[in-house]
Amino acid sequence: MERILLSHGSGGKNSKKLLEFIYNGLGKIVVNLGEDSGIAEIQSEKIAITTDSYTIEPIFFSGGNIGKLAICGTLNDLAMVGAIPKYLTLAFILEENFAIEDLKKILSSIRKESESAGIKIIAGDTKIVSKGKLDKIFINTAGVGTIEHSQNINSKNAQVGDAIIVTGEIGNHGAAIMAYRNEFQTELCSDCASVSPLIQNLLNANIEIHTLRDPTRGGLASILNEIASASSVDIELDEREIPINDSVNGICDILGMDPLYMACEGRAIIVSPESEANKILKILKKTVAAKNAKKIGKVTKKSDKPRLYLKTFIGSKRILPLLSRELTPRIC
Amino acid sequence: MERILLSHGSGGKNSKKLLEFIYNGLGKIVVNLGEDSGIAEIQSEKIAITTDSYTIEPIFFSGGNIGKLAICGTLNDLAMVGAIPKYLTLAFILEENFAIEDLKKILSSIRKESESAGIKIIAGDTKIVSKGKLDKIFINTAGVGTIEHSQNINSKNAQVGDAIIVTGEIGNHGAAIMAYRNEFQTELCSDCASVSPLIQNLLNANIEIHTLRDPTRGGLASILNEIASASSVDIELDEREIPINDSVNGICDILGMDPLYMACEGRAIIVSPESEANKILKILKKTVAAKNAKKIGKVTKKSDKPRLYLKTFIGSKRILPLLSRELTPRIC
Repeated sequence: MERILLSHGSGGKNSKKLLEFIYNGLGKIVVNLGEDSGIAEIQSEKIAITTDSYTIEPIFFSGGNIGKLAICGTLNDLAMVGAIPKYLTLAFILEENFAIEDLKKILSSIRKESESAGIKIIAGDTKIVSKGKLDKIFINTAGVGTIEHSQNINSKNAQVGDAIIVTGEIGNHGAAIMAYRNEFQTELCSDCASVSPLIQNLLNANIEIHTLRDPTRGGLASILNEIASASSVDIELDEREIPINDSVNGICDILGMDPLYMACEGRAIIVSPESEANKILKILKKTVAAKNAKKIGKVTKKSDKPRLYLKTFIGSKRILPLLSRELTPRIC
Repeated sequence: MERILLSHGSGGKNSKKLLEFIYNGLGKIVVNLGEDSGIAEIQSEKIAITTDSYTIEPIFFSGGNIGKLAICGTLNDLAMVGAIPKYLTLAFILEENFAIEDLKKILSSIRKESESAGIKIIAGDTKIVSKGKLDKIFINTAGVGTIEHSQNINSKNAQVGDAIIVTGEIGNHGAAIMAYRNEFQTELCSDCASVSPLIQNLLNANIEIHTLRDPTRGGLASILNEIASASSVDIELDEREIPINDSVNGICDILGMDPLYMACEGRAIIVSPESEANKILKILKKTVAAKNAKKIGKVTKKSDKPRLYLKTFIGSKRILPLLSRELTPRIC
């Protein structure tokens, strides 16, 4: 087996071979497969459910690949409601002629990230389409987690006076992908990672959290616009406080892009009462992954026309709107 | 909005517009969206989880479309472990320039099937890829259901003496798709439908069930091979008893294909003690959808080399093997 064949999707002998290869690559994170549904024991009455498809181009990038991205993205979506990740579904759509060697690397990343999160793959699917009908590989995952806290964490719950905290530098993922596509020489890596442990640390310390979101597609500015809109509040960011890597700034300058709209894949936005801000930063900074965590703004007032403002370096204020064009297709 | 644009996947203004269009098309089956994960209350300690990607070509076919197929396929996978369907995730990957009018029809089918099953969509995702990087539309769904019976229903549990029952004519879906692709004139419709109500009826009547599977990709013969292999048993089918529509036979004859390997999308294989067979058929036949249900074979013996046999019309016996080539790519 060197390349994916159409017959790997037939339901016959070759399907069986490919499935065995996939199970083998995933190892012990696979449970209960071989039936049309997997069966899970759940010790909580409240569960979180999420899904995402991953269509990123390139599929291998500095700091990760489509497999790592799929698992971390799902873990992050579960973390954003404070859920403890338990189960994943994993569906591949593969283009005929896709290299088995590449699939192996992707499976290995999926295994590594899943093992370190203690999450199990409970259902899967593999479809093959003819050459030219799909670009290489798309992955879809759904995640199931348990809600074991009793807080009301959601986008509608940002409150006047709340602090806006980000767990690290923004835009690294988007900028790294754009640098690759434009063949720039750079050391910049994607921030692709699970933020689940960071959020669990905060919940375990009984930190009050109003809203959690991960700034993926559309970046920090788009997600904060969504929070402002859902909570009917104005939010103000302080440009001096927003952690941005020099390489990200450089890449964005050349491409005429704004880092505030560049995707992250390993960051969380935390909206919490100002009185919790220092505690949150202290807990976050204990972890290498969040050593650059920063308070970057605040919720200023209730508003019928919710807006996101940026207080710039020179002290002026400008609106950061929702964008109307696509900056970076297939970023995730 | 007439066509899908790349900017519909940006996370900005156009993404919001497309999302509103999708929510609108789906109506009240959508719950808890707008967060990174949806939150569900679950009243059962045992849940079933399944996933599938749908890449069918053509996306509209006689008897359904890719949207109906995605919902029914997921309902069927949940039914195959006797689960009661509760929640769905719904992820679209759309090709740039896809017609909004077609998306509307697909959404309408998804809504209709979900409403009639009482299932809610709790998480979603929409990705857009450039023209030529994907053929029109792929859909991924994951399903979550509750297990409220205490039977051990799985592929490993087929037992010597068990009857093999199928809920209706086989191969209609595969043959209808192949007829369309080959531009045959035919009245044949896909059997695309949810079998969940049929299975619930059996469970509610306390019927003992050992194995349930839906014969999709690879058809009846492939799935029975999987059951034989998982349970280490030989299975024997009686060709005279297998319900096959004349049109399916005709289409397969012309194309040199075997209906026993053609995909169904609205049938279930039920493996139960022979003593339950008549009760099962009686319950099934009360429903129009299963009026052609039949006992088609039996589990004959334990076996180290599990095989599926066919007793033919003329009384001879032949092996129905797992296929090694792909008959019908993108059938689901």
